[in-house]
Amino acid sequence: MDLLVTFESGAPLHRQLERQLRDAIRAGRLRPGVTLPASRLLADELEVSRGVVVEAYSQLIAEGYLVARRGAGTVVAHGAGAGALRDVEGVEHAGGPARIRFDLRPGQPDYASFPRQRYLASLGRAMRTLPDADLTYGDPRGTHQLRVAVSDYVGRVRAAVAEPDDVVISAGLAHGLTNVWSALRERGARRIGVEDPGWRWQVRTVEHAGLTAVPVPVDEHGLVVEALERLDVDAVTVTPAHHFPTGVVMSPGRRAALLEWARRRDALILEDDYDVEYRYDREPVASLQGMDPEHVAFCATTSKTLAPALRLGWIVLPRRLVADVARQYAVTWASPPTLEQVAMAEFLAAGELDRHIRRTRRLYRDRRDALIAALAEHLPQIQIEGEAAGLHLVGWLPSDADEVAIVGAARRRGVALHAIHRHCTCVAPLPPALIIGYAQLPEPALRSAVRELAAVMG
Amino acid sequence: MDLLVTFESGAPLHRQLERQLRDAIRAGRLRPGVTLPASRLLADELEVSRGVVVEAYSQLIAEGYLVARRGAGTVVAHGAGAGALRDVEGVEHAGGPARIRFDLRPGQPDYASFPRQRYLASLGRAMRTLPDADLTYGDPRGTHQLRVAVSDYVGRVRAAVAEPDDVVISAGLAHGLTNVWSALRERGARRIGVEDPGWRWQVRTVEHAGLTAVPVPVDEHGLVVEALERLDVDAVTVTPAHHFPTGVVMSPGRRAALLEWARRRDALILEDDYDVEYRYDREPVASLQGMDPEHVAFCATTSKTLAPALRLGWIVLPRRLVADVARQYAVTWASPPTLEQVAMAEFLAAGELDRHIRRTRRLYRDRRDALIAALAEHLPQIQIEGEAAGLHLVGWLPSDADEVAIVGAARRRGVALHAIHRHCTCVAPLPPALIIGYAQLPEPALRSAVRELAAVMG
Repeated sequence: MDLLVTFESGAPLHRQLERQLRDAIRAGRLRPGVTLPASRLLADELEVSRGVVVEAYSQLIAEGYLVARRGAGTVVAHGAGAGALRDVEGVEHAGGPARIRFDLRPGQPDYASFPRQRYLASLGRAMRTLPDADLTYGDPRGTHQLRVAVSDYVGRVRAAVAEPDDVVISAGLAHGLTNVWSALRERGARRIGVEDPGWRWQVRTVEHAGLTAVPVPVDEHGLVVEALERLDVDAVTVTPAHHFPTGVVMSPGRRAALLEWARRRDALILEDDYDVEYRYDREPVASLQGMDPEHVAFCATTSKTLAPALRLGWIVLPRRLVADVARQYAVTWASPPTLEQVAMAEFLAAGELDRHIRRTRRLYRDRRDALIAALAEHLPQIQIEGEAAGLHLVGWLPSDADEVAIVGAARRRGVALHAIHRHCTCVAPLPPALIIGYAQLPEPALRSAVRELAAVMG
Repeated sequence: MDLLVTFESGAPLHRQLERQLRDAIRAGRLRPGVTLPASRLLADELEVSRGVVVEAYSQLIAEGYLVARRGAGTVVAHGAGAGALRDVEGVEHAGGPARIRFDLRPGQPDYASFPRQRYLASLGRAMRTLPDADLTYGDPRGTHQLRVAVSDYVGRVRAAVAEPDDVVISAGLAHGLTNVWSALRERGARRIGVEDPGWRWQVRTVEHAGLTAVPVPVDEHGLVVEALERLDVDAVTVTPAHHFPTGVVMSPGRRAALLEWARRRDALILEDDYDVEYRYDREPVASLQGMDPEHVAFCATTSKTLAPALRLGWIVLPRRLVADVARQYAVTWASPPTLEQVAMAEFLAAGELDRHIRRTRRLYRDRRDALIAALAEHLPQIQIEGEAAGLHLVGWLPSDADEVAIVGAARRRGVALHAIHRHCTCVAPLPPALIIGYAQLPEPALRSAVRELAAVMG
């Protein structure tokens, strides 16, 4: 392989390496099927630490430019050079390869259940009643009506402690995270703890804000707080109610230790209240935020309850951070349209979101049961975890399975699902697994999808 | 004044000083009316360059914490310590002091003209026709329908060269700028040229993305390209069709020189097509982008034509930047809701935006004429500029006038307008001036507002 890599000062080395490899693949200088040097070798050659190469490779694997083959090293993916837009997540979805017949991708609610009539009615009322003066730039925290409705809702449903003044409306979770990180950066923060394994946007938003993401291990009790103690981070983001992707619920001992850590360091815990609306066996644990509103920011989104297309979420902030975070929102002004905010305020206050969640919870529980039964019948070698809550479960594969190959083969048969490594940052080794979403498909379709998957896995 | 300032490594010094001064004012350690040391003295004392102090003071003046008094130095504003949220722009607007009777703030269209029925009809059709599958995460560039409609619209109206694949939909201008800067940063850019004087969000978005904003002078022919040559910037943002705030239209010679600069350096020009829809005497100049789509990114917003509450704008990008910018959008996912995008696509394609602009153009021209006549009658000492286009004009004051005091006194009488220094970054000295918006008020109200202003200015 003839690859010229040069480093300049400024951008992080792994980013520079990643870019140069991506450009080389796009331009066809690195052809599909070519095996890249082992990370240790390339690191020696470039005189950088091995972590630089590992990070660059991982990112390009996640983007689909490279493929990690068990025993065969890291290989340039077939078709990777085709177009510059391939690696951009949504674009890839949009113009994907074969038509998706069975959509088992995680994090997707049932779109056929979206309450179109009711939501449109709320929009219509908002349009008819909104004062002219509210068509201007509003409060960067969001409209007063929606902040009131959210503070009531999260207090009632999640035992969060929220005054309307401490609520900030965002265009979904990642937008909210980014603005919190930017505010912390301006206050001097440098390092943010992220879950390992964890949702990839935890790392992405931290790096987008110019900070360093520091992986913190997660075990079967949740985030390992002891490890956190040694990492010198200014804040940490966690999914305590339902960890993504494994579904672990943080244990009471760990919750207490985490709060104690935040108090001692005067650090911030960013609680992502992930997928908590759908818990099938018992009541969800209450928010961490309610136990210490001065050290925990609580954030949630309507993407998993209603639809990602709405681009609407919220954060409840410790009082001392509100002005600094609001100032970040006022830089990009990417908050949801006022009309949507006023409509959502009415939708929440009228109890429509509660009703929608009750209806879909029954639907999803039945679908989950059908998926579990079909997996037990056709794919007993898959070990299920994280099925107590949420819109997906984790299917651990035999340790010698090639999750990427399975996902690719399934996709060619019209079954879309995700390998666990696609959807999470993981520094510590993680066995191969599939993430299987079940919210979108009626029970017969779920059974058919599992049969297709079984055919793929032979 | 007993003020302890300490600097740490990391954040820019002016930001650190700014924060510490702000905190001291909020906490009451610096009391209203206290005069701060002259910038040169404080700089000596802190062993920093004078620019650090000037920048910190300017920002706090803009935020309302400090007031620059002619001949009396820089003073802590009255009421500045009241609440931590005061300095956040929108929040300040929302809970402002006296009720606004006459709103002459710039950048505000006439909200009473907002086409509520037509826009709601578009939303309703979007809700009824949107496929279920489109309720998921979409293409980070925006929906295909809207990108098609925008490429048609900007080609037709602004002679821009735009394929739908090169269009990215944003939540307004600042959101778009931020994502372009972030993409340039990842490609190694460090310094971005901004207009001096210029729109404050040019600087804010550049700094939010972690880059350095480099002021480039603007004279009566537009951006001074000769100065740009010496500044070693990777990109520059300009308002060539109608400079904010002065209203200057960039001369043909400067346009050619700017394009020539960009080609020679392979740099990016970010063309903010500010306020171009409202030109009263002749046709607007065509976009710069149409002359060199490989070196110019073209961006526009519906905030000035319809309403800021919509949070919707677009950028046309050079092909080579599309994937990198789209990747930034996919980090924060703060794009407008899909429903709004589909509604706007229909609204544009049906010619509704053209119709709305034609209607309001007549309205605004009459209002502008009434304002000019009233100013000539009651305030002949104000010299008018930038009245050929847009939604505001600049009123240059006698050189010894105190624009901040005038704006404050007017505000107490219910007249809201802006001092030019509030709304622009300016390193080079700029005489005092008022920015007077006229789009929102009917003619009799404009006349009354000018009479109030005349009473204030005695």
